[in-house]
Amino acid sequence: MTRITVPSEPVSTLSDAWRTCVGTGRFNLALRQDYQDSLALVQRDIGFRHIRGHGLLSDDVGVHRPYDAAGHRGTRYAFTYVDQVVDAYLGLGIKPFLELGFMPSGLASGDETVFWWKGNITPPRDHREWAALVEAVIRHLVDRYGLDEVRTWPIEVWNEPNLVDFWQGADQKEYFRLYECSARAVKDVDASLQVGGPAISPGADAWWEPFADFVTQRDVPVDFLSVHAYTSGPAQHVPFGTYQALRRPQSLLDQFAAPRRILAGTPFEDLPLHVTEFNTSYRPDNPVHDTAYNAAYLAPVLAGGGDHADSFSYWTFCDVFEEENIPTAFFHGGFGMLTHRQVKKPTYHLYSFMARMAADVLARGADHLVTRDAATGRVAVLAWQPVGGSEDPHEPERHELRLSVPVASGSGNAPLTASVHRSVVNETEGNAFAAWQHLGRPASPGVRQLEMLYEAAEPVRSHTALPVTGGRVDLVVTLGRHEVTLLEIDPVRDETPGWLDDARILGRGDRG
Amino acid sequence: MTRITVPSEPVSTLSDAWRTCVGTGRFNLALRQDYQDSLALVQRDIGFRHIRGHGLLSDDVGVHRPYDAAGHRGTRYAFTYVDQVVDAYLGLGIKPFLELGFMPSGLASGDETVFWWKGNITPPRDHREWAALVEAVIRHLVDRYGLDEVRTWPIEVWNEPNLVDFWQGADQKEYFRLYECSARAVKDVDASLQVGGPAISPGADAWWEPFADFVTQRDVPVDFLSVHAYTSGPAQHVPFGTYQALRRPQSLLDQFAAPRRILAGTPFEDLPLHVTEFNTSYRPDNPVHDTAYNAAYLAPVLAGGGDHADSFSYWTFCDVFEEENIPTAFFHGGFGMLTHRQVKKPTYHLYSFMARMAADVLARGADHLVTRDAATGRVAVLAWQPVGGSEDPHEPERHELRLSVPVASGSGNAPLTASVHRSVVNETEGNAFAAWQHLGRPASPGVRQLEMLYEAAEPVRSHTALPVTGGRVDLVVTLGRHEVTLLEIDPVRDETPGWLDDARILGRGDRG
Amino acid sequence: MTRITVPSEPVSTLSDAWRTCVGTGRFNLALRQDYQDSLALVQRDIGFRHIRGHGLLSDDVGVHRPYDAAGHRGTRYAFTYVDQVVDAYLGLGIKPFLELGFMPSGLASGDETVFWWKGNITPPRDHREWAALVEAVIRHLVDRYGLDEVRTWPIEVWNEPNLVDFWQGADQKEYFRLYECSARAVKDVDASLQVGGPAISPGADAWWEPFADFVTQRDVPVDFLSVHAYTSGPAQHVPFGTYQALRRPQSLLDQFAAPRRILAGTPFEDLPLHVTEFNTSYRPDNPVHDTAYNAAYLAPVLAGGGDHADSFSYWTFCDVFEEENIPTAFFHGGFGMLTHRQVKKPTYHLYSFMARMAADVLARGADHLVTRDAATGRVAVLAWQPVGGSEDPHEPERHELRLSVPVASGSGNAPLTASVHRSVVNETEGNAFAAWQHLGRPASPGVRQLEMLYEAAEPVRSHTALPVTGGRVDLVVTLGRHEVTLLEIDPVRDETPGWLDDARILGRGDRG
Amino acid sequence: MTRITVPSEPVSTLSDAWRTCVGTGRFNLALRQDYQDSLALVQRDIGFRHIRGHGLLSDDVGVHRPYDAAGHRGTRYAFTYVDQVVDAYLGLGIKPFLELGFMPSGLASGDETVFWWKGNITPPRDHREWAALVEAVIRHLVDRYGLDEVRTWPIEVWNEPNLVDFWQGADQKEYFRLYECSARAVKDVDASLQVGGPAISPGADAWWEPFADFVTQRDVPVDFLSVHAYTSGPAQHVPFGTYQALRRPQSLLDQFAAPRRILAGTPFEDLPLHVTEFNTSYRPDNPVHDTAYNAAYLAPVLAGGGDHADSFSYWTFCDVFEEENIPTAFFHGGFGMLTHRQVKKPTYHLYSFMARMAADVLARGADHLVTRDAATGRVAVLAWQPVGGSEDPHEPERHELRLSVPVASGSGNAPLTASVHRSVVNETEGNAFAAWQHLGRPASPGVRQLEMLYEAAEPVRSHTALPVTGGRVDLVVTLGRHEVTLLEIDPVRDETPGWLDDARILGRGDRG
Repeated sequence: MTRITVPSEPVSTLSDAWRTCVGTGRFNLALRQDYQDSLALVQRDIGFRHIRGHGLLSDDVGVHRPYDAAGHRGTRYAFTYVDQVVDAYLGLGIKPFLELGFMPSGLASGDETVFWWKGNITPPRDHREWAALVEAVIRHLVDRYGLDEVRTWPIEVWNEPNLVDFWQGADQKEYFRLYECSARAVKDVDASLQVGGPAISPGADAWWEPFADFVTQRDVPVDFLSVHAYTSGPAQHVPFGTYQALRRPQSLLDQFAAPRRILAGTPFEDLPLHVTEFNTSYRPDNPVHDTAYNAAYLAPVLAGGGDHADSFSYWTFCDVFEEENIPTAFFHGGFGMLTHRQVKKPTYHLYSFMARMAADVLARGADHLVTRDAATGRVAVLAWQPVGGSEDPHEPERHELRLSVPVASGSGNAPLTASVHRSVVNETEGNAFAAWQHLGRPASPGVRQLEMLYEAAEPVRSHTALPVTGGRVDLVVTLGRHEVTLLEIDPVRDETPGWLDDARILGRGDRG
Repeated sequence: MTRITVPSEPVSTLSDAWRTCVGTGRFNLALRQDYQDSLALVQRDIGFRHIRGHGLLSDDVGVHRPYDAAGHRGTRYAFTYVDQVVDAYLGLGIKPFLELGFMPSGLASGDETVFWWKGNITPPRDHREWAALVEAVIRHLVDRYGLDEVRTWPIEVWNEPNLVDFWQGADQKEYFRLYECSARAVKDVDASLQVGGPAISPGADAWWEPFADFVTQRDVPVDFLSVHAYTSGPAQHVPFGTYQALRRPQSLLDQFAAPRRILAGTPFEDLPLHVTEFNTSYRPDNPVHDTAYNAAYLAPVLAGGGDHADSFSYWTFCDVFEEENIPTAFFHGGFGMLTHRQVKKPTYHLYSFMARMAADVLARGADHLVTRDAATGRVAVLAWQPVGGSEDPHEPERHELRLSVPVASGSGNAPLTASVHRSVVNETEGNAFAAWQHLGRPASPGVRQLEMLYEAAEPVRSHTALPVTGGRVDLVVTLGRHEVTLLEIDPVRDETPGWLDDARILGRGDRG
Repeated sequence: MTRITVPSEPVSTLSDAWRTCVGTGRFNLALRQDYQDSLALVQRDIGFRHIRGHGLLSDDVGVHRPYDAAGHRGTRYAFTYVDQVVDAYLGLGIKPFLELGFMPSGLASGDETVFWWKGNITPPRDHREWAALVEAVIRHLVDRYGLDEVRTWPIEVWNEPNLVDFWQGADQKEYFRLYECSARAVKDVDASLQVGGPAISPGADAWWEPFADFVTQRDVPVDFLSVHAYTSGPAQHVPFGTYQALRRPQSLLDQFAAPRRILAGTPFEDLPLHVTEFNTSYRPDNPVHDTAYNAAYLAPVLAGGGDHADSFSYWTFCDVFEEENIPTAFFHGGFGMLTHRQVKKPTYHLYSFMARMAADVLARGADHLVTRDAATGRVAVLAWQPVGGSEDPHEPERHELRLSVPVASGSGNAPLTASVHRSVVNETEGNAFAAWQHLGRPASPGVRQLEMLYEAAEPVRSHTALPVTGGRVDLVVTLGRHEVTLLEIDPVRDETPGWLDDARILGRGDRG
Repeated sequence: MTRITVPSEPVSTLSDAWRTCVGTGRFNLALRQDYQDSLALVQRDIGFRHIRGHGLLSDDVGVHRPYDAAGHRGTRYAFTYVDQVVDAYLGLGIKPFLELGFMPSGLASGDETVFWWKGNITPPRDHREWAALVEAVIRHLVDRYGLDEVRTWPIEVWNEPNLVDFWQGADQKEYFRLYECSARAVKDVDASLQVGGPAISPGADAWWEPFADFVTQRDVPVDFLSVHAYTSGPAQHVPFGTYQALRRPQSLLDQFAAPRRILAGTPFEDLPLHVTEFNTSYRPDNPVHDTAYNAAYLAPVLAGGGDHADSFSYWTFCDVFEEENIPTAFFHGGFGMLTHRQVKKPTYHLYSFMARMAADVLARGADHLVTRDAATGRVAVLAWQPVGGSEDPHEPERHELRLSVPVASGSGNAPLTASVHRSVVNETEGNAFAAWQHLGRPASPGVRQLEMLYEAAEPVRSHTALPVTGGRVDLVVTLGRHEVTLLEIDPVRDETPGWLDDARILGRGDRG
């Protein structure tokens, strides 16, 4: 069993990198009610700063609009949907992390597409027209939202150009051309805007040096670097689903760390680094995303990822997502922290637990993170059962840790007790996926089944008070299978009046 | 241990008497935001038909308004607040159960009052003016809401006239005069309106025969009878609080039954009988109201009360209530199912569990009620630990019951499993009062403390699937101390596609 | 000037045909926030019974899902989006009017499509598979919503099969085959479900007799007939827009009347007749839809359409619509009563005015409809400037009518005055399109511009009181250009106390 | 006619004093739904910083709670309602401006009260206990909301101690004692908290020097001065109502200016000065408050008040107010900008128009205020018909002003037109009080009457575009009786595509 004596003074500060950005399905989907309901919930409980997804320039957002009628010919830029979405984002307290892509069909050089929704992945037919498009979009945003605001929105050029699925031929030279053209168009609007890339997928470390060389040699603007991270192995398909092996969680942290390691000693080492996508599996139909395992797996990544990157963006906040067609079942292995209709998955709770951690880190280890709020004295313990991916798949049914936690007195006398409020999510508790399995996996749950799923999805809460001895509370925390748990420990200021005698309440008098 | 083989065919129909009416603090309080937020929640989760409280005619509602200025003298009837409240009620899907009282100061014959908020309890100075007031109020309601609507609102004359606290001298003859005068005034508006009384408190059975005689002899309209029921003994006061002994729960049912027993053989036996107030303790500062004990105590009363009365109205739905001055602490023994700011007490959950029961009763016993929904086949089991009041105070830490539950096939093949969704409330789970004690009983909880209380107040949910054998599921239900539990058992229609193999999800393969 | 002495007794009853159904963009769009916000507003102010649009079976709803992987092959029916949309509809108090179409690509016999969003218009590759799909969809709806509910949802087979744009080759024989196959599949679920067609466009009267013959000869179920009606001439295109001539409003009523006229004497004459689409122009980019002219034009159609059809469904309730690609400007000639983001167009107000008319019709004429509410005595006058389409385009700047309106006494004494509350919409008042033009036609209005548009879109209200003489009020109503106006006339029950003297209020004493 | 050439450069900056504070009925009323709905609306449209009313320490808030039971005796401070109200305020974006008063009955030295709701106006029985109470309240607020927050809440000692109605005997010496005791108690919590007084009513200028002398001699803390201002003469009562003469609007500005004039040359001249109450009439039953006259009267006061005071707090934001008992009619001359149920009065619109003015003042005169927003170039003109109170009561039916307004080009080319959006409120337009009179003054309007009142209460909007010549627009503004009007003038960036031809829209081609 882990035994930890938590120091009484902070050892570090918790980075906000974990909540700096979150991923989302394509831009057009942000018009949906279900999407906006989900985002509102996420923002209430978690509170991300930025949101990033594909498809800003794809046909279903309708920006690039060539016309030729009645003797009039040209291109109109239309922001009908762009403005609706960005207005909604800002109204929900989240800023765009812009991704420039995919190619509007009216500007595309070919007809290769990616995804069920057919994002065009070919280079522009005319780079000047592409630059004009980029400039028009950014200028419109600056006009509408103000330069001070847009300056805080990173602008990333394309997505995973190192993969043939996302960029015709995975043509590096063509990408660099697109990058340069885009970056200069952005800076033509205002030099203070932030542009970056190359948004490469895992396994493309060989792109870093050429990218660095290219932008250096041609003096191309680059304000940040971006990369993706996943730990899943090859997909084993079944209808509407996929199974995959996973490497250890540490592999995610290693991927976060790679760019700066590779670029060490260059000026690029000091640029902001954004992991603009990460998750266990890169498939939107792998059931692991629905499990407590996914949360337990990611817990150490959220706790430690800020050591390596300025942001790491969970792909994605909700199951409103259509890259592999429309889901055919309620739980379908989608990326979302939330299902359609906002049933919370375990990974949602991991994030909501993180949102209750404070800035001062008292301890961090293989199965725990401990923080304290300077203002209130509340100590928050995030604990999890460590898991090892497919490389080490045999977790026991239980995991235990013991902590000695310092409980400061808020003011005045030292507290005699501390209250402990615990929230539990594991394979059977706070687990709507398990409940859904018990219900017979209804593809489209009825109203009452949905209510049950909402109820089953809530963490199981317990509450107690423990004695404070020598300014410390001793905790023995037993975790279930793949559990992620939050303990919130408050020094108690006892306001009980002297005249109260609980033994006089019926049903209390005869208790120990 | 109880062992029950639940019949597979209904034995009776569950009466709606338990939800026909609920009690509330004085009429004026219905103007409050906290009150309306609470009522909205209650209506969403429970759904009462009527709401009854005091003070419609008291000065703080402002109906009876004598004036004398600039040579103009008379009485104006003002419905500014009456309409705001009734509009709000109807908007929340609940109808008034009107109580005529207390006496407006401009019409009172004396200055005796009841409660901190000073309801005047003296007879009218002028009975014609009282009749005019009653008629004006009812006529206004009929004008505004329509006769078809108001005809469904029972109109009760005064409150507990048998007590000197509520009616000067507990003067029976004076009450009968008031009753007659009021009933005739109501009928003068429309003969189809329902009027009744005498709204007597427990221990006043001696009033029934004189009341019956009086209305018979003088042919006074009486459309329903009303009575109150409580089981608490004398109050033992501490500052801002009270402790009391309680009789057994059966005492409440006996009180419900008394009027018809006493009036057996008379035409009054067949009148609708409304228990217009009931609870354990009649004190708004007895902590028993905040406990799981209160819920366990009332469970058999809700299950069986419909045998005796057409309604029995829990006094009261929320802690917005000021009869003994403004509460000085968050939990203060208030009558409410909800605290200020809508933290749910165990009795709230008892009611919300009842709201999930269906019409067909399969079984009813000392610790359980079992229903089945004809449309869906869902079986709902409400179970509780029996408690005995102060007369039998030594409940064990656990209570167990075993049920064999019939699980019908909704359609097609017989189900192989049934899903069981359980919701638990007892002395430690789903118990915000216990959590509040652990927090040091903060008199006015802070924002984060309130969040904890909301979380702690939710029933602990669990979900499982059980095999169906011979059309039945065997359940062993272990209840904690003073537990009220709900089990919702659904026949499972398994929609699992043949290609799914949970063992291929990470973390699943190596399980039993 | 029109002079009307409105009779004091009803001459007829106002049919609800005008609000029985409303049109909508494709099914998938109902997932949008903007769409649902618009529908909520429409339902609050107008309250339609049914909603009908295309695309229930199109790929972007994801129902028909063939699979072939890991040795598993077949077709899955998925209702993920169907249920979300229908749940939302019912939650907003509106029922689906189902249209079966278009063809899922996995079942299509070809790849011809209609609209920017590519609805497949080819017959099924396999009619048994089509029948299985239809049956599965209807059975699912019956399972989820109950037969009693679904029985009230008309089910229409396909859309405008007489046009090559909507049905490959406009092949009548193929349509009849599809109709028979679909109708029988529906009835296989339950014989009480309502199925109908042929949903033909204007100008296809030649289809009626063959359709009648076909279903008669083969004894194919047909519970209702459906047809569309538009009065626009050929489209004159400009980029992102269209201009067209319009026939007279009477042409719409003639089209409504045609099927029963043609089928007179046959059993089909007595079937319910649903005009499942109507509007002035059939183009979603004709600016006439944004104008007061459109409202004035349709006013007599709404007032009189119920003489000819059981429903006539305005195409469409909001501008969330993508048949001709995504709109490039805020006002773009869309069909909607509401723009994106719920700015109200004049036609919206026409409908909201109709929603304030009562059941008893006192008078109806070329420029007015007068009703009276039996319960309250309120007389509502809907008046409009008659317009003649392109055939008679020279309306004057003003139109005047004079009415003598009977004002009944609600109860008691005859009223001395009547209050008149007037709501005005014309080319300059209550006209957001005009305001938008003044603003320079911003393609994507900013936040403050939107606020101005909301304000400019509200009808101009005025209020006065008029003397009642001989039980009548004389009204002279002057309408502006293309005005639609509502007057609500209430008999006044004067509650002014005798002591009030407005001359004593500052600023009042010296008034005439 | 006024002719104004508005300068093209700012002449001053508009002070925020007008929105720094607003008045409210007693603290307890803030618990009401109607109150909170009203405040939410006010905050959305206007946005005050602080809110001030009476009764924080009165019995109906329940703070001071002596007890004596079961051998326990003492005083408990209870914040049940205080916290609910302050939480609600902060949640609505408004901060308390605390007023210490009135006297809790448990601490009072006598039983004299003020108002229908009986605020006790006697000095404390024990000044140490008063100091303890003040300190406890402030300390609790600091504990709950933080010192940084509470430091921004001014704390005012008592209300109008110069009047016998509000302070027993209007005893100056006793007030100074209370002030000292209170101020020191506040500073005992934290020296940075702001305390002030003496909150005197109009006509008490003789108090300033003694107050200044007292605090100087005894070195009593005073961080701000406070005073009230009203211009009404003696009340002429009728039942439930009052008529009064009014002095000129300038009298209000003179009252704002008086304290600094009187204290000129002393250090008190430089203290913040808060006019913690002002209005025309000081009576909550004077119909002038419901009129357009009230708005026109106050327009120059809002425009100019910031020259004299750091805040001037309109008494009060809504009609939820009970100083003269519960209103017996919907419009009853209440202070509110809003009636019960949020019908907007003209004075509400005056404030909402002010909320649309920008910081840069271009011109200010007897009938106008002109501002320009630096970011957008929008020019806002607030214009009104000047009125003179009872001293000059004969306003004409119309008032006209002519302005030449500079219209800057936002960017790029100079605009050719400016859009003008006008909002009108006068004796007949945007005037729910007039509509209510036409309806027969229903004391308690029905649902449909309320809808009419909401509609009648909206300003009449009109929209046009005017040519810009030499960078200027010429406006001729005709105002109706007692009108307050807002014109918002925006330079137009014309986005009309070249292919549009409105003449081709039906109903447009034949227009001049």
